[in-house]
Amino acid sequence: MNYHMIRYVLGQIMKLEAALMGLPLLVSLYYLDEGTIPLLSVMLPVGILGYVLTGFKPKKQDIYAREGFVIVAFAWILLSVFGALPFVIGGSIPSFTDALFETVSGFTTTGSTLLTDIESLPMSLLMWRSFTHWIGGMGVLVFALAILPAGSAQSMYIMRAEVPGPSVGKLVAKTQITARILYGIYVFFTALEAIMLRLTGMRWFDCIANAFATAGTGGFAVLNDGIGGYHNVWVEVIITVFMLVFSINFNLFYLLLIKRFSDVLHNVEIKVFFAIYIVCTLLITCNIAPMYHSFSRALRYAGFTVASLSSSTGFGNSDYTAWPGFSQTILILLMFCGACAGSTGGGLKVARVMILLKSGVREIRRQLNPRLVAPVRLEGQSVDAEQISTQGSFFIIYMVILLVSTLLLSLDQYGFDVSFSASLTALNNMGPGLGAIGPYGNFSEFTAFSKLVIIFDMLAGRLEIFPVLIAFMPRTWKKA
Amino acid sequence: MNYHMIRYVLGQIMKLEAALMGLPLLVSLYYLDEGTIPLLSVMLPVGILGYVLTGFKPKKQDIYAREGFVIVAFAWILLSVFGALPFVIGGSIPSFTDALFETVSGFTTTGSTLLTDIESLPMSLLMWRSFTHWIGGMGVLVFALAILPAGSAQSMYIMRAEVPGPSVGKLVAKTQITARILYGIYVFFTALEAIMLRLTGMRWFDCIANAFATAGTGGFAVLNDGIGGYHNVWVEVIITVFMLVFSINFNLFYLLLIKRFSDVLHNVEIKVFFAIYIVCTLLITCNIAPMYHSFSRALRYAGFTVASLSSSTGFGNSDYTAWPGFSQTILILLMFCGACAGSTGGGLKVARVMILLKSGVREIRRQLNPRLVAPVRLEGQSVDAEQISTQGSFFIIYMVILLVSTLLLSLDQYGFDVSFSASLTALNNMGPGLGAIGPYGNFSEFTAFSKLVIIFDMLAGRLEIFPVLIAFMPRTWKKA
Repeated sequence: MNYHMIRYVLGQIMKLEAALMGLPLLVSLYYLDEGTIPLLSVMLPVGILGYVLTGFKPKKQDIYAREGFVIVAFAWILLSVFGALPFVIGGSIPSFTDALFETVSGFTTTGSTLLTDIESLPMSLLMWRSFTHWIGGMGVLVFALAILPAGSAQSMYIMRAEVPGPSVGKLVAKTQITARILYGIYVFFTALEAIMLRLTGMRWFDCIANAFATAGTGGFAVLNDGIGGYHNVWVEVIITVFMLVFSINFNLFYLLLIKRFSDVLHNVEIKVFFAIYIVCTLLITCNIAPMYHSFSRALRYAGFTVASLSSSTGFGNSDYTAWPGFSQTILILLMFCGACAGSTGGGLKVARVMILLKSGVREIRRQLNPRLVAPVRLEGQSVDAEQISTQGSFFIIYMVILLVSTLLLSLDQYGFDVSFSASLTALNNMGPGLGAIGPYGNFSEFTAFSKLVIIFDMLAGRLEIFPVLIAFMPRTWKKA
Repeated sequence: MNYHMIRYVLGQIMKLEAALMGLPLLVSLYYLDEGTIPLLSVMLPVGILGYVLTGFKPKKQDIYAREGFVIVAFAWILLSVFGALPFVIGGSIPSFTDALFETVSGFTTTGSTLLTDIESLPMSLLMWRSFTHWIGGMGVLVFALAILPAGSAQSMYIMRAEVPGPSVGKLVAKTQITARILYGIYVFFTALEAIMLRLTGMRWFDCIANAFATAGTGGFAVLNDGIGGYHNVWVEVIITVFMLVFSINFNLFYLLLIKRFSDVLHNVEIKVFFAIYIVCTLLITCNIAPMYHSFSRALRYAGFTVASLSSSTGFGNSDYTAWPGFSQTILILLMFCGACAGSTGGGLKVARVMILLKSGVREIRRQLNPRLVAPVRLEGQSVDAEQISTQGSFFIIYMVILLVSTLLLSLDQYGFDVSFSASLTALNNMGPGLGAIGPYGNFSEFTAFSKLVIIFDMLAGRLEIFPVLIAFMPRTWKKA
């Protein structure tokens, strides 16, 4: 284990977090709100600690899968712990567990909230809360790779551990350039969304905060009534479109950029993703139309909610907990499936679900003909046996975590639907669940123990499980 | 496809079903109830049709995996359709869909009922209802193999498709002898249970019906209040013990019989099964003790209910839908896990869950060291890669069926907990679910469409999915 590299990279992340808190600090200075002292009293020590940790550059810069997982897990934990402090110091969220819950929910782009009165927070801390979505969406370590001087050649191990999806395609040979391209696309679409929201008459603060929350597919709102609180159909349409944009594999935008249009047209995952979107929207629209006495109103709610849950954003413009059971069950299935691989969205990812389903179908055929050799194909390429076995095992571990945390949450006061949907929504970085934790409910009534379970689920979900498990296995820390 | 063999075996099954109806007919003649005419009016045509179909022995007796799946799927469907007719003709269950539901629930050893007043049925039809559990538990085709003149050498394909569990170990070289040994053990324990129940003072009719329902891990009761209706702690203890006995891999009883004690002692699956039983019983006891103001009463209910759900029997001596969420969630996890492979119990089976979990753990280790070669080991033997991949794919297909049928059931009037637990309980051949379909509820309020979905789930669960899917794939019927 290369401890020096771990120390060094974690130091870089701390410097970066201190710098990133500059944005809410600016907001605080602009609005002259109560966020200045809490923010500064975290930025300074964290920044200094970061400088100390990065003072000595490690001689041996080699890192491997092991270090990659450990770095990513600890970076996210440190990031969340320090990110939570301004809320505690400022008194907005007095309990540290609660503040940690809110911050992990932010960085992991889950968007589940404990707050019962969001609007009572100082503007600067509200901006920090939404900004955590943006930072966590593409990944803070990817960001570090993009802006820091080119590190070791093995930085791919870090990127692979942080970027969601069954596999990370390097766009170009160098990891740093890949990271820059990804962040370039990310910044571009975020800015575009903020500007388009501004055209609806929304104030700049909300435009930026909502664009951050959409880009990271997070779902923290700045109004108590969520996106529905703007009572503006154009706001909802713009956000629906961008929730879908940020659910797409970013590699496709790069391919568009370098004019490889046919590669984009032949991408199967995106077609399946949009097919799911359209079918589910229509099914739910028909199911809820009688309830709203209006097809167009039903379409508006269904189109927004399906985009919100497919992308794992979790924004709300209507209370789906009042919808019929059929619509709610579709939404739960969407939570399992999630967005495209290589996007900022959560869930199992469409590509992974496709691999799993295809291997299931192959198994049925193999029962008839045990000597059948039929590779599972995705995007025109055959998926090798090891990859299929990895995805199968990932799914098993995912289900185990889902069921065990449902069990732990059931120690709380709620019934099976709330415990199960709380685990599912946390593990898929979605946000709202069923019943008391629906889009207009919140997680404040859970016990501290339940909150810790959900914090673990959110981190496990965002980092696709392996880093958080591996970082805490004794075997990882043994000498080779 | 060897159509003549399919016809021939199905004919045998029909003759056998007509013969098996002789038992309820005897009951009917003994009690002089209204079951005589309905039973005879099904037995005669079914028996005659069976004789006609088996009149010409096929020249080519070769059957392969394909024929095995088709035979098993159709045998179970025919068995259920004819088995349902006495209820319709006798007027006990006037709707054919309802009667089919009840009969499929019987043969698949699910034990979910539509009846609101069980005791109003004629004794003979009540006995037929419980007897279907016993017939379905070990498998009707296995029974046919045991008693009919030795068929083709490939009859293993039929046995493999019908006996539950990830793999069928042939006890001895000949399939027919294996089938006879299995049925011998089955008859012995069923008789033992009936005799022990008789010692508690229960009338013979109930002893036999309850022994059938326990042996098949079915769960149909003959009293409206289930096993709790006897208000006798010894009845509950005896049934608890036998529910556990019938959850054990029958191969182990055979090993005991031939005095290979060390093989039994080294069996891991049975240790895991009992460890799960003890831990879950204690957890639930502690969780519900405050509710009943009595530790011993809580232990009595928990011990019985955990045995009932682990074995997938579904008998009730208390209403667990009133228990706290934690206990209910444990029960749901038990439904997933189920009994040991090679028993009459349902669920994923302990051995399969162990293979899945071990492959999950191996994947975590492989993330650290991609070149790691570490076989998954079970019962001291390494499980080959193909077997692991098969179990992984089985789990995926299982989850897909579970989620799709939850979606279809959600079209009904119920919420997510009922739709989900109805699918889970049907697919695992358990019986009761949560909410309205708890141990003291029933399935009568579902629509006919929902009942058909549940019928499919029950058959898919009992036959471990592949036969019912394969029998209805066009590919199966294509010429090679």
